[in-house]
Amino acid sequence: MGTPPNLANLRIVLVRTRNPLNIGAAARAMSNFGALSLRLVTPHDQAFREAVSAVGAEPLLVAAEEFASVEEAVRDCSLVVGTTAVGNRELQHEFCWLENGAKKILRTLAASRVAVLFGSEKTGLSNRDLSHCHWLLGIPTREEHRSMNLAQAVAVVVYELSRSRQGPPAKSRIPSPPADMETLGRLSAALRESLDRSGYIHPRSAASAEEKLRRMLLRFDLTAADAEVLLGMVRKILWKLHSRD
Amino acid sequence: MGTPPNLANLRIVLVRTRNPLNIGAAARAMSNFGALSLRLVTPHDQAFREAVSAVGAEPLLVAAEEFASVEEAVRDCSLVVGTTAVGNRELQHEFCWLENGAKKILRTLAASRVAVLFGSEKTGLSNRDLSHCHWLLGIPTREEHRSMNLAQAVAVVVYELSRSRQGPPAKSRIPSPPADMETLGRLSAALRESLDRSGYIHPRSAASAEEKLRRMLLRFDLTAADAEVLLGMVRKILWKLHSRD
Repeated sequence: MGTPPNLANLRIVLVRTRNPLNIGAAARAMSNFGALSLRLVTPHDQAFREAVSAVGAEPLLVAAEEFASVEEAVRDCSLVVGTTAVGNRELQHEFCWLENGAKKILRTLAASRVAVLFGSEKTGLSNRDLSHCHWLLGIPTREEHRSMNLAQAVAVVVYELSRSRQGPPAKSRIPSPPADMETLGRLSAALRESLDRSGYIHPRSAASAEEKLRRMLLRFDLTAADAEVLLGMVRKILWKLHSRD
Repeated sequence: MGTPPNLANLRIVLVRTRNPLNIGAAARAMSNFGALSLRLVTPHDQAFREAVSAVGAEPLLVAAEEFASVEEAVRDCSLVVGTTAVGNRELQHEFCWLENGAKKILRTLAASRVAVLFGSEKTGLSNRDLSHCHWLLGIPTREEHRSMNLAQAVAVVVYELSRSRQGPPAKSRIPSPPADMETLGRLSAALRESLDRSGYIHPRSAASAEEKLRRMLLRFDLTAADAEVLLGMVRKILWKLHSRD
């Protein structure tokens, strides 16, 4: 068996889940495989904390955290991964199959928090949700029958994460820690304000511009140190832009 | 991705399942991962063919086969694997964790049918069920929370089977095909009758003796050819035993 990977830094985030039984069933699978931190973004039914499907995972459900938006739910994470049925995947994102994706997630988990997002039963994650994701994860299902049950998808993902033998990176080369989402959010906001003020962003397309900006920053895979340096630069620019009014 | 393994020879066998929704949910997971043959041993509720949880797996449920006993359900299979929560595992059986177990199953699947058995929600597989199994398969769950939802366990097992890159054995060395359960059943019966007639088996312990016999034969990992030879031998002995009355 070897030592199972420690999933203490993992956050499973269920976004707009409709059926509280699915939340309970997801919690049970998480508990089976040692992923104990559940986050919920605006679940449709507040009865989820009493879901009978949680069999044995009641403590996990009681401790589940609720958030009003994906942005808030992933703020303290350094890597945000969206799950998707392959047919629906956005080409704007890097895409990984579960086996390789789990290895990437585990490398980050060794040092920082990772959020894995699951969308609602009917519609999955929205484009806005996806704009918070560094990359997308797909479970290799059969082409003729892609759509998985939500809790089963959670079960398979946490199983793969707990299964993988991939340990932390070798000690001889400690990689710089990645930027967290809060820093990236500040950077994105500062950059957007700068672009706004520069007249680069048309007011009518401001919302989509913000998403595009976030995606771009995520693609950079910034280290924490680099993100701070960049933020300092953008703020300096912004200060300058304000001072010229 | 590579070519996914062909699961055409796989039979998922649900034994005495109580909740028809679990049968539907298991069928959905099987369909997602390309395991399309479901067998049921005396399900408690005949409403399972209309289970709403089967979303997209209705054809699989319609085609599901029903059997009155485990023995009949595995008769045409060459390998029978029982799933177990590790805490309950019988020490009389060889035991494999899912990752290695899946590789073993796939090697046999390349040439012959394999049955993977899942017991009822509350009690799992009985000792009698287990006496039909060559070895036991365990999903590595957390010690503090071993008990999985039935359909999630099926999902994780068929995911692991569809995931594995293990192909058929190298062509240079074609292993002899393993004995099927029908031949082993005939062998076991002939042997038991021989032992009965020899006064080896006490009538009061006849049932448990039959189970022990079956286990022993399974441990031998007989090839089809060897099983036939052995059967010929035992029948010859039996004929002799009869002729001496």
